[in-house]
Amino acid sequence: MRARNIDSAKAGSGGELALLREIRSRAARAGRGGLRLGIGDDCALLAPRAGEELAVTTDLSIAGRHFRLDWHPPDAIGHRALARGLSDLAAMGARPIAAFLSLGLPRELTESRGKQAAWVDGFLNGLLALADKHRVSLAGGDLAESPLAVADIVLAGAVPRGEALLRSGARPGDLLFVTGALGGAAQALARLAELAARLRPDEAQSSRPRPPHIPTKQETLLASHLYPQPRIAQGLWLRQKGLATAAIDLSDGLSTDLGHICEESGVAAEVDAASLPLHPGATFEQALDGGEDYELLFTASAVARIPRSIAGVPITKIGRIVKSRRRQPAVTLLTAQGAKPLEPHGWEHFA
Amino acid sequence: MRARNIDSAKAGSGGELALLREIRSRAARAGRGGLRLGIGDDCALLAPRAGEELAVTTDLSIAGRHFRLDWHPPDAIGHRALARGLSDLAAMGARPIAAFLSLGLPRELTESRGKQAAWVDGFLNGLLALADKHRVSLAGGDLAESPLAVADIVLAGAVPRGEALLRSGARPGDLLFVTGALGGAAQALARLAELAARLRPDEAQSSRPRPPHIPTKQETLLASHLYPQPRIAQGLWLRQKGLATAAIDLSDGLSTDLGHICEESGVAAEVDAASLPLHPGATFEQALDGGEDYELLFTASAVARIPRSIAGVPITKIGRIVKSRRRQPAVTLLTAQGAKPLEPHGWEHFA
Repeated sequence: MRARNIDSAKAGSGGELALLREIRSRAARAGRGGLRLGIGDDCALLAPRAGEELAVTTDLSIAGRHFRLDWHPPDAIGHRALARGLSDLAAMGARPIAAFLSLGLPRELTESRGKQAAWVDGFLNGLLALADKHRVSLAGGDLAESPLAVADIVLAGAVPRGEALLRSGARPGDLLFVTGALGGAAQALARLAELAARLRPDEAQSSRPRPPHIPTKQETLLASHLYPQPRIAQGLWLRQKGLATAAIDLSDGLSTDLGHICEESGVAAEVDAASLPLHPGATFEQALDGGEDYELLFTASAVARIPRSIAGVPITKIGRIVKSRRRQPAVTLLTAQGAKPLEPHGWEHFA
Repeated sequence: MRARNIDSAKAGSGGELALLREIRSRAARAGRGGLRLGIGDDCALLAPRAGEELAVTTDLSIAGRHFRLDWHPPDAIGHRALARGLSDLAAMGARPIAAFLSLGLPRELTESRGKQAAWVDGFLNGLLALADKHRVSLAGGDLAESPLAVADIVLAGAVPRGEALLRSGARPGDLLFVTGALGGAAQALARLAELAARLRPDEAQSSRPRPPHIPTKQETLLASHLYPQPRIAQGLWLRQKGLATAAIDLSDGLSTDLGHICEESGVAAEVDAASLPLHPGATFEQALDGGEDYELLFTASAVARIPRSIAGVPITKIGRIVKSRRRQPAVTLLTAQGAKPLEPHGWEHFA
């Protein structure tokens, strides 16, 4: 019995090495500044510039939990896995350097079928296209055969020491802003669920589920869920200008993520319901609780001059930071009907 | 439907937050130099010293593949997950700074049962005890409910720029060394399998498998598999003295890992069978192919003065680096019966 192969007696015919070689050759094309040594040694080596520190984040994606093989095209799963990590770097105002991918996959997802490429090829296409767009290198990772598809993405970025945007810097009197529009991802996910149910009701039970064919006219409507765009340029701009006092990315929903800023900063917040930039077609609830929009939520002094757009993305003032008071909700929603507590209704694991 | 909660309609009752708070409070105690900002923001911030670069490695552990819930005590699973990453840092001669843990767990492993602590508490005990020993902080990670237990560990360490020990530096004429003894982990795993089969034959089928009770007299015998000790001090010593020309950690077995050094360095190697430091009771095959010993394999110039032990761990010369020749095996085993090719028989995923 081999030491690590505790579940079976499969012989080593080079499967992992073959996939590793493919990833390595595709990753090499993206090699860029800040990464001194990539895939192929015990560790990757990252060399930030003098005076910089490293921002590091990890995001775990699990089949059936963060994605569904019978709903999501493989390139969207790859794109979304990387986007989650890039969005965390954006929220710190960090410049992306390198990504690491730990991938556990059922064997059938690594095999091609006739002319049909292996699922993992599509996954890598989506991941590497987004990596290329943001000039981040795939610098390492780990591979394993797994009965359940799992992907853990690690992102490392650089930021001048002491200048990272934190969740903890919001002060009473600051104003509250978001990039882009809210609720688009939740709305698109609801559409995708309908599409999957209507077109391929039995697919979820198949041994190798495939995502539904997405009609061209639906592609744009689904893009905010399938291919979210992390706000790297906007985070860099805010950090370079020194305008934001605190920032977070909207991964779990405005109601949850604003709560994180309040908790870490020791403050409370008011949101003006009428001011929320709803994604076209999204409901108010989707904008508040939907999550996965990957927009930036940030605070700035009331005298800071925040532009109407940053690098082509609109900026909207949605409320303000106020003092935290005992027995008062951390976040209050101000509507035409009056004020009411905004409870965190974004998604939580282990809930 | 909430955006990320695509598989169920479970309401958010704070389960993830509760576990996150526990991890955060336990991790805080270990906060040390090099980590500027730990758990609680979008990213952790690592501040290497001037002139240092960052070494980063990820290791994915999957239930049934890298560990078994019905064989391994939870603290051993936590210890082993971290040890894999620390061993990669050791092989580069890096000083550990921070660890990140992405954890996907079935809900039942996060719940206590009467007076019995939750499985995850034992896992964290094992992981954090080893982290503490090597002065590495748990700086972040991700949590998710998952039908399959998975843990991805990321380790970040610091090394003076340009001084990391690489796989690619071995040259013909160099001698080949290992730390410690070989085959102990494979031998202990075989014992553990016997113990599990004898004591609890039905346990693997139970809904919440538990590892076998390990008699005290067996603990030491099983330690090389359950609680491997990464060779951090030995890696640091070799790097600081500038004596090693190449290094790798023995995670997949000597036959496989020596092949990696040969491939990355463009050389071949000869191993003297009689010189291998077998762990007491281990077979020759376990020493060659077993894997998970987490000893260091390194090369040094023939004129370098390599001591008999480094930081209390014996060092053994086991062979030499030679020129690579076409149609010749990369690694040759020299025995009393003559020379024969040493094929890589360590474990591979996707094989």
